[in-house]
Amino acid sequence: MNYESLREECFEANMELPRLGLVLYNFGNVSCIDRQTGVFAIKPSGVLYDALAPKDIVIVDLDGKVVDGALRPSSDTNTHLELYKAFPAIGGVVHTHSTYAVAWAQAARAVPLYGTTHADHLATDIPCTDFMPDECIQNDYETETGLQIIDFFRRHGLDPSEIPMALVAGHGPFTWGATVAKAVYHARILEELCKMAFLTEAINPDAHRLKDTLIQKHYNRKHGKDAYYGQN
Amino acid sequence: MNYESLREECFEANMELPRLGLVLYNFGNVSCIDRQTGVFAIKPSGVLYDALAPKDIVIVDLDGKVVDGALRPSSDTNTHLELYKAFPAIGGVVHTHSTYAVAWAQAARAVPLYGTTHADHLATDIPCTDFMPDECIQNDYETETGLQIIDFFRRHGLDPSEIPMALVAGHGPFTWGATVAKAVYHARILEELCKMAFLTEAINPDAHRLKDTLIQKHYNRKHGKDAYYGQN
Amino acid sequence: MNYESLREECFEANMELPRLGLVLYNFGNVSCIDRQTGVFAIKPSGVLYDALAPKDIVIVDLDGKVVDGALRPSSDTNTHLELYKAFPAIGGVVHTHSTYAVAWAQAARAVPLYGTTHADHLATDIPCTDFMPDECIQNDYETETGLQIIDFFRRHGLDPSEIPMALVAGHGPFTWGATVAKAVYHARILEELCKMAFLTEAINPDAHRLKDTLIQKHYNRKHGKDAYYGQN
Amino acid sequence: MNYESLREECFEANMELPRLGLVLYNFGNVSCIDRQTGVFAIKPSGVLYDALAPKDIVIVDLDGKVVDGALRPSSDTNTHLELYKAFPAIGGVVHTHSTYAVAWAQAARAVPLYGTTHADHLATDIPCTDFMPDECIQNDYETETGLQIIDFFRRHGLDPSEIPMALVAGHGPFTWGATVAKAVYHARILEELCKMAFLTEAINPDAHRLKDTLIQKHYNRKHGKDAYYGQN
Repeated sequence: MNYESLREECFEANMELPRLGLVLYNFGNVSCIDRQTGVFAIKPSGVLYDALAPKDIVIVDLDGKVVDGALRPSSDTNTHLELYKAFPAIGGVVHTHSTYAVAWAQAARAVPLYGTTHADHLATDIPCTDFMPDECIQNDYETETGLQIIDFFRRHGLDPSEIPMALVAGHGPFTWGATVAKAVYHARILEELCKMAFLTEAINPDAHRLKDTLIQKHYNRKHGKDAYYGQN
Repeated sequence: MNYESLREECFEANMELPRLGLVLYNFGNVSCIDRQTGVFAIKPSGVLYDALAPKDIVIVDLDGKVVDGALRPSSDTNTHLELYKAFPAIGGVVHTHSTYAVAWAQAARAVPLYGTTHADHLATDIPCTDFMPDECIQNDYETETGLQIIDFFRRHGLDPSEIPMALVAGHGPFTWGATVAKAVYHARILEELCKMAFLTEAINPDAHRLKDTLIQKHYNRKHGKDAYYGQN
Repeated sequence: MNYESLREECFEANMELPRLGLVLYNFGNVSCIDRQTGVFAIKPSGVLYDALAPKDIVIVDLDGKVVDGALRPSSDTNTHLELYKAFPAIGGVVHTHSTYAVAWAQAARAVPLYGTTHADHLATDIPCTDFMPDECIQNDYETETGLQIIDFFRRHGLDPSEIPMALVAGHGPFTWGATVAKAVYHARILEELCKMAFLTEAINPDAHRLKDTLIQKHYNRKHGKDAYYGQN
Repeated sequence: MNYESLREECFEANMELPRLGLVLYNFGNVSCIDRQTGVFAIKPSGVLYDALAPKDIVIVDLDGKVVDGALRPSSDTNTHLELYKAFPAIGGVVHTHSTYAVAWAQAARAVPLYGTTHADHLATDIPCTDFMPDECIQNDYETETGLQIIDFFRRHGLDPSEIPMALVAGHGPFTWGATVAKAVYHARILEELCKMAFLTEAINPDAHRLKDTLIQKHYNRKHGKDAYYGQN
């Protein structure tokens, strides 16, 4: 089995994070999955982006076992793993500590949908989980982080194909997408939406959530069967 | 009919947006009109700036019909179209989702004229429309967006030659100018004025609008028959 | 008479402003004076930094008359002129519309001395003038802008050699220095002090002005006969 | 005795500060110690980073005497000296005036531990000293600055190996580490944590300190005998 192209894809997606200003040092990780063979490629733990090479990318199966690669995978590997198992339509997962997204996660608030930039990408507030209960923290923490997101989506009836991002309270953002390139794109969008929402509230503490008709209009311009944005 | 120079002008103006830090990915579009032939050139829908080439620019007439070009024009084409029809003196239109301008639009507030940087460019607050009524959203949304700006200017007696910018509530900025280069310039100025006004209110929640004598002095230094700024 | 070196010095100082992120487009101007011949070199009005060349710099005498150069000098020339006449020890003047300094000027507040970064450069708050009375605005506005700063310094017993900067209410910053390089340096420092003071108040609305013993300690480390900072 | 490699290490660490956006002009200094010979290398006073060369680095012993080098050492040398004497495990010290860290120091507040980005690096709030008493300011100010940090750590039972940073009230940050590279890393992290905490409070004025179980989990992922982050 040759994982060269999966490694390359994962490497390129990881290298986008510093180019997009989403990571300091090594504070982030990207993975992408090959659904056919049931393995995913992920950044090794604690390696700086400047020093990262495609050969360093670690290949892990859906039981969490390293199947190829000389390095230890990201300490967040089990979070990625749970998301891949629970959300079968996603092809890539991104975790960063980008500044504005972390600030909302630390503030433990969902990001209100204030405008069309947000509605162009998702039709709800950006969800923020509760703080993790102590028994989960003591347990397998990274697995529990994934389960916390999944559980939040299930309890609130959220569709991960329509809402490709979540904040983990006190921690930071996870994003995903049908492809790893889309997951990275969502990480960048999320950071911008978080900055815009912060500024909106500073400019008008009584700012209202966008009305639903406008949300639907913008979301459906870009998504679903009646989408008319773009070239397809 | 050869649209090469109009396409080139439109392409160059579009490429200024990422250079000026006004767009993420493809969140914006620029058009420029040839008033003699009654057609305008506009960015194609959903194409990334990195991938954009002059040949991709779409030529549209004032009935909204594509007259040349292989791609679908920007989904905001009808907004540009309405502005060209209603404001006969303008030569270019710019739409962005620049961060601070969007924040004011999401806050649904006109940007107060707090200082001479603002008065050097326009002598009023930067207008912000109302939220669009539901019947307009269900109708031809992008046409209605243009009409909303035009209607706001007419109801308030605003002159689009003197006030080359507007915020659409919950959405973001549109700017224009006698030339497309000026329209792009106004998009950059607007973003800076929005940032300055946000900071002004944070530093002094009781900041006053600049007094009218100072506004007129600065505006007239640069505009009108007694202007003495610049080399002409 | 050959003004080549004065022009070159003025040109280089002007070009520092965009490199330091202090100007958008052409929103600023720098001048430097040759005290021996009693002329100063200043940026031409309305010329973009990208297009500026040393030969464009205009030479003006202390009566405000252009003595050399093909272009019209900066519209703010008379403000520079008044500062040179009233403050005989200064060699250069800088005017910008840098973002945080303008925000404090628009907020019409002196910038409180909150820390040692500020005290390393000046031992008082950064002064902010009052709003200009209407009769001065109608008069020779740019001359009055200079007189307003000078009058503020005289009324409050401020020494322009020790306080090399001022905010003009509703407008923006002017800085100066023994040399034009120092005047540019002060423009950059001012912008940073304004950003730090804004953040300080956001983090602690009850932040106190630094106590006087600390102010004097830091100011005197770098200034006056007992200075022990640097290599001289 | 040849100090070439110590000078080179100190030079490289100093040059990281402008690359990381932590210093304006010459507002900062880095030193590194050779514990075997009991000397440390430090930036010369008042030299701009652009003009700095390895040969300019000054070598100082633990009595504060210059043992090699043509220039005067940083005016903050005695602060570094006290930290090296009191904290025997540290190999490098960094002082900057980075924007957000200075703002918290001017606000005279410890930076609350709001999230896992913070807990990944230290398990407590970032300490902020009291304002220095007048008798210390009149005394040897820079020595007293070091003693103030040391005294704060002793009185509060803080371990400098676990808390590699402090804010000096009204002044700014000092950071350190087992190596000078780690001290520089901590200076960058501190700036980011200060920005994130500022934004967190702006987004939610009632934001809570992270709960202790999450703090311990994240801190111990990266530190101590059960650490499982990284490749060792």
